[in-house]
Amino acid sequence: MEVISAPEFIRRVCSSRQPTWVQIGETVKRIIAAVKEKGDAAVLQFEAEFGFAPKWLRVPADEIKGAASRVPAELRKALRIAAERIREYHESLPVPRSCDVKVGEGRIRFTVEPLEKVGVYVPGGRASYPSTMLMTAIPARVAGVKEIVVCTPPGPDGIPAAATLAAAVECGVDSIFCCGGAQAIAAMAYGTETIPKVNKIVGPGNAFVTAAKKEVYGVVDIDGLAGPSELMVAIGNVGDRVLGWALEDLRAQAEHDPQAVCVAVTTSHAIAEKLSELSGDVNGYIVFCETGWTQGLEVIEHFAPEHLELLGEDAKHLAGKVRSAGAVLVGPFSPVAAGDYMAGPSHVLPTGGSARSFSGLWTGSFLRSHSVMELTRQELGQLLGVGETLAVAEGLRAHARSFTVRRDSSRGDGL
Amino acid sequence: MEVISAPEFIRRVCSSRQPTWVQIGETVKRIIAAVKEKGDAAVLQFEAEFGFAPKWLRVPADEIKGAASRVPAELRKALRIAAERIREYHESLPVPRSCDVKVGEGRIRFTVEPLEKVGVYVPGGRASYPSTMLMTAIPARVAGVKEIVVCTPPGPDGIPAAATLAAAVECGVDSIFCCGGAQAIAAMAYGTETIPKVNKIVGPGNAFVTAAKKEVYGVVDIDGLAGPSELMVAIGNVGDRVLGWALEDLRAQAEHDPQAVCVAVTTSHAIAEKLSELSGDVNGYIVFCETGWTQGLEVIEHFAPEHLELLGEDAKHLAGKVRSAGAVLVGPFSPVAAGDYMAGPSHVLPTGGSARSFSGLWTGSFLRSHSVMELTRQELGQLLGVGETLAVAEGLRAHARSFTVRRDSSRGDGL
Repeated sequence: MEVISAPEFIRRVCSSRQPTWVQIGETVKRIIAAVKEKGDAAVLQFEAEFGFAPKWLRVPADEIKGAASRVPAELRKALRIAAERIREYHESLPVPRSCDVKVGEGRIRFTVEPLEKVGVYVPGGRASYPSTMLMTAIPARVAGVKEIVVCTPPGPDGIPAAATLAAAVECGVDSIFCCGGAQAIAAMAYGTETIPKVNKIVGPGNAFVTAAKKEVYGVVDIDGLAGPSELMVAIGNVGDRVLGWALEDLRAQAEHDPQAVCVAVTTSHAIAEKLSELSGDVNGYIVFCETGWTQGLEVIEHFAPEHLELLGEDAKHLAGKVRSAGAVLVGPFSPVAAGDYMAGPSHVLPTGGSARSFSGLWTGSFLRSHSVMELTRQELGQLLGVGETLAVAEGLRAHARSFTVRRDSSRGDGL
Repeated sequence: MEVISAPEFIRRVCSSRQPTWVQIGETVKRIIAAVKEKGDAAVLQFEAEFGFAPKWLRVPADEIKGAASRVPAELRKALRIAAERIREYHESLPVPRSCDVKVGEGRIRFTVEPLEKVGVYVPGGRASYPSTMLMTAIPARVAGVKEIVVCTPPGPDGIPAAATLAAAVECGVDSIFCCGGAQAIAAMAYGTETIPKVNKIVGPGNAFVTAAKKEVYGVVDIDGLAGPSELMVAIGNVGDRVLGWALEDLRAQAEHDPQAVCVAVTTSHAIAEKLSELSGDVNGYIVFCETGWTQGLEVIEHFAPEHLELLGEDAKHLAGKVRSAGAVLVGPFSPVAAGDYMAGPSHVLPTGGSARSFSGLWTGSFLRSHSVMELTRQELGQLLGVGETLAVAEGLRAHARSFTVRRDSSRGDGL
């Protein structure tokens, strides 16, 4: 890891972070257009083109149950315990609820309800990510989403990983489709003969998946655009043992992806030196904040990390001050991996500095709202003139007239 | 307006609705790249290219105040009354608040806070939309957004419309920039010498603006992609007078834009006939639901209109059943124009069927959340095994090790 000063890090690293989904735009557009036009046939064609051979497009219910019962009991138990914690956390979150809102003399209904159909993308192929199944499907289920469908690519045997299927059973998803990449995203956005069109697509994926999500945004909603995973560790006054743990956490981060971003932040020259020595194999930065933790906080806010660990009593004081981070993990017993697997909050978090704009996935991500208003004759009578004036100011004569024609009745004339 | 059966409307019209922002992708990409690279100079160059001559890029504070004081007193008063109602509504909405969430033996902090900087796009040029200023900036201000910046195109005199500036004064926005189109969106997404980079861009615009918003989505958040405005009027048992009002509302809708979508839904053959006769000049459909309002509700859900009016006692019963609409306006004294101008909810609403996926703009649209977790030694001790098992199942050895290295300490060994 390279030692760098706080101002230089802010200037050089924070300002040059680039999204990674832009380069493959044309390929992805071609895939989406084909799936939109040809449905299942196109999905299967692109699976083959990318070297996958799904045994079926819809994973049969028996296969899901069978796979779930074949995974080791220890893994089944771990999935259940993690699922229970994630569920407990999401069930307690303060979601907005439908209510009547007083405005003037009247009331307007603000309705909140779950999305009807959600599509979850769970990466697969050579690796498997059962934790992503839990971290996406559980908040959706808790929010009350009626139908949750999953797309996940097959392994070399043409079947999604057994661990992923076992996790799906734990969340109670409605159907699983054996496909991945941009073709899976297109299928969930437009629907095919086999795969239903959903209202929102969530879950991380490779650059193709992310580019496809950006492309279909608007047709459906999405959870955001996931870039390479990031960990920033603010290391305060800690001993060698905790410093060693911090290093393990940075190494764990590096393991996700060659592009994963690892950053340590410290106010101590000695710790910066020591880390630089010990972290030879980790790719990333050690940001030295010579003026103290106020500068450290500035570094954090400029970087807006996906994950932020705070180690040492002095750094822990930042917990209540940090605004721009996906998840903050405080103290030596909160490794980022606990956030990845079972602490409670979803591990689908904003990356690439977008924590300034976006939230991590939560129950509220699966709700939609609308308003229902019924003005009375009296209310409209009082507001008619306001509406007419504004409509005329905007040059919208027919809008003004839609008020004017109601004027007589609002004055008490019967219908 | 063309009479069409419910099944045919669903099959032919609902399924073929297309987003309109796709065709100008390449031009917009070129504009965005130029603004990102050259800042103000590129913004001004594109203003000129599209035939606008802004007097300045940043509208001077004196000019804003001056314009506001020059608009007719009646308009100022109308803006104030509308602003007060919109503010009252948004202040009462049930936004999520920060809280401590119990999970297992411990607690996780769920923090909610306003976005720091929001960019509002208010259309302009030949027309002016002071109502859009109110309907975007007020919810942002109520949510607690620190800095609200506005981009709006100049009129023929090189200055934004006085009515728009007067509305800005009413909302208390922080700065106004005199530019529009894709160049304005790019400027707020990436920042220029003069225009600050924001965290979220909201507000409707032409196809260039919408395409640009889609393009910068991810770099910043956006409120959605606005297509042509839509009104669906469900007309039940009403007399000629209310039928006439419905027609005025459909005409008002048609006035927005040649592409505006006007749809009447009725279960009465007589009303369908009468409307068809009276609505010769309006472009749109009269959907005849011969089997009654259950079918009517199906039509509504398939179309998922931006605005839905319910007229007549029988149609009014749908108010509590409709799920997919941006705003529902009930009864003869709730014309869609009241929703546009002053009823309370924002008029920035999902179009093109996207009400199935998206909500209208509200205070919650300007909040972001993150989690803060501090596991204790004991808690991590209990969960370590779960994390190790899941990490190993996912083939992430370094993740497993980040748990393992903490095992001894979690068993009671000191730090």
